[in-house]
Amino acid sequence: MQEGEDKMATENNNNEDASDRWVAYRPDLKILDCTIRDGGLVTGHHFKDDMVRRIYETNIDAGVDYVELGYKSSKKIFSSDEFGKWKFCDEDDIRRIVDTDTPNVRISVMADAERTDYHEDILPKDQSAIDCVRVACYIHQIPIALDMVKDAVDKGYEAMMQLMAVSVVQENELNSALKAVAKSPASAVYIVDSFGSLYSEQVRDLTKMYIKAMEGTGKDVGFHGHNNCQLAFANTIEAIVAGANRVDATISGIGRGAGNCPMELLVGFLHNPKFRLRPILECCRDVFVPLSEDYDWGYSIPYALTARLNQHPRAAIKMRASDAPDDYVSFYDQISQEE
Amino acid sequence: MQEGEDKMATENNNNEDASDRWVAYRPDLKILDCTIRDGGLVTGHHFKDDMVRRIYETNIDAGVDYVELGYKSSKKIFSSDEFGKWKFCDEDDIRRIVDTDTPNVRISVMADAERTDYHEDILPKDQSAIDCVRVACYIHQIPIALDMVKDAVDKGYEAMMQLMAVSVVQENELNSALKAVAKSPASAVYIVDSFGSLYSEQVRDLTKMYIKAMEGTGKDVGFHGHNNCQLAFANTIEAIVAGANRVDATISGIGRGAGNCPMELLVGFLHNPKFRLRPILECCRDVFVPLSEDYDWGYSIPYALTARLNQHPRAAIKMRASDAPDDYVSFYDQISQEE
Repeated sequence: MQEGEDKMATENNNNEDASDRWVAYRPDLKILDCTIRDGGLVTGHHFKDDMVRRIYETNIDAGVDYVELGYKSSKKIFSSDEFGKWKFCDEDDIRRIVDTDTPNVRISVMADAERTDYHEDILPKDQSAIDCVRVACYIHQIPIALDMVKDAVDKGYEAMMQLMAVSVVQENELNSALKAVAKSPASAVYIVDSFGSLYSEQVRDLTKMYIKAMEGTGKDVGFHGHNNCQLAFANTIEAIVAGANRVDATISGIGRGAGNCPMELLVGFLHNPKFRLRPILECCRDVFVPLSEDYDWGYSIPYALTARLNQHPRAAIKMRASDAPDDYVSFYDQISQEE
Repeated sequence: MQEGEDKMATENNNNEDASDRWVAYRPDLKILDCTIRDGGLVTGHHFKDDMVRRIYETNIDAGVDYVELGYKSSKKIFSSDEFGKWKFCDEDDIRRIVDTDTPNVRISVMADAERTDYHEDILPKDQSAIDCVRVACYIHQIPIALDMVKDAVDKGYEAMMQLMAVSVVQENELNSALKAVAKSPASAVYIVDSFGSLYSEQVRDLTKMYIKAMEGTGKDVGFHGHNNCQLAFANTIEAIVAGANRVDATISGIGRGAGNCPMELLVGFLHNPKFRLRPILECCRDVFVPLSEDYDWGYSIPYALTARLNQHPRAAIKMRASDAPDDYVSFYDQISQEE
């Protein structure tokens, strides 16, 4: 994307009155589907090839811009006996799914800082069906994440930055991080609400802050929400209205804990004629209704309680998998009293 | 509430910066629990006395301001063989639940325009345990609704106006209606998103419009949301931030179709020390987890599809009760192709 276009899109948005915003659409807005990647945190990254291919094809039919197939995790740290293959995204596995002749969708993978052997496992672009590497890091991992971004871009990929758990980052540290990202070759930087604890006004403020920090660089700002407080879709809309041009969603909202922004809600909301809702509804019916019988994801009260304390949802995930998944009071007492 | 206080509360809110808004609280904000009333649309208004009493006591413990026990529906129109007693809220039924010595909670009932024999069935206040009559109407029923408000106030009650289905009301008609309400003796007027189709920005704009129309009258503006697009809680927050001082919620989000703003999320969000979360969590665990095995409520895709078309959810409710509750595609095709 050109720098001028990017700036104009944001300015136009800020100048529109409310009625314009709902009826118009932003041509630059790009959706990334992370159904397999974030949904892998629910299934242990086990998905059969036909399911992955169905999700890939659904996204092409729906006009979604990016499909994220999983993580590029280190096999030195994580055992391929324990985790499914979409935690590693080997080139052979990706090539069994992806039709590299399809020009209108980009394939991304997520590379976690300190959990990826990026020098070895991210191949030069001309040897890979991957188009984009999304580097995920916590605030203290910014230096290594920037090296990973540079490595990916040097190898020929698009690279994006995902600064996780932004709800616990101090504002001065965040400003420093964004300054460093602005100088990097990343194409976009995402606001990542890992704990699902942001309210819409905070999302608006953060989006404006990120956009300001990226001003003049041509970089997009993105948003990745979690549904702990039934706010993933609402916050995604707020980020869009505030000028974010990249948003993440998953079909049927599958994702860690309370899940992500549901693709069917997002595409139903957007007026961009390139996006189509019907293929996503088909996939919900055919794939995710049966899958929901085997796996538990989506909003429930314990996720709202960890979000309220601005905590990682791992205690809630553990509680939901226990033999008392609905004992909200004991869980509330436990997490409220922890020192 | 005094007129001056009301105006100040709104102005203060508009002048606060974002960080203030999340950390501070608005002493004037009042929550109305409509668990039995809107939940009655799920259960046919059948609730056992011990469940109603538990919900009443939970709200007292939680510091909630109003408890709405049901409708005052006409027995000439609706059969008490078909519907449960909370569709009629006979004085004897209410008195079995309510401890009239408890000063810190107000009892409300809903009176639908053209469905209530208000002259006969709303008793003089000194013969009733009810404190507040909420008059609900569609735009064309404004004249009769205003007569019902006057009747209730003349009899000694607080009265509020609920203008339903605001998402299909033309702006000039809405302005006329609000002018008439401003002259009425109602204490508050609610924005009612009956179809669950409003996005947060529309809620902000409507809230500001309602507040402006009520300026100088001392009347509060309220918001009643539905969760068709997972936005009931988000929209309720937006209304509060925009200056609404009355909000509705239901425990566990029970309510017609996709349900309402969950009380547990709302109280978890508010910082007012008078509200307490733990009793609500107890009630969710003890009452609503078992109830959810017998009744279907809460978000699912068909509700988002009717909301997207700005339609009443009745087609989605019927579809969810059919033998193909997950055939989203046929439902989408059906409602998209209807002429």
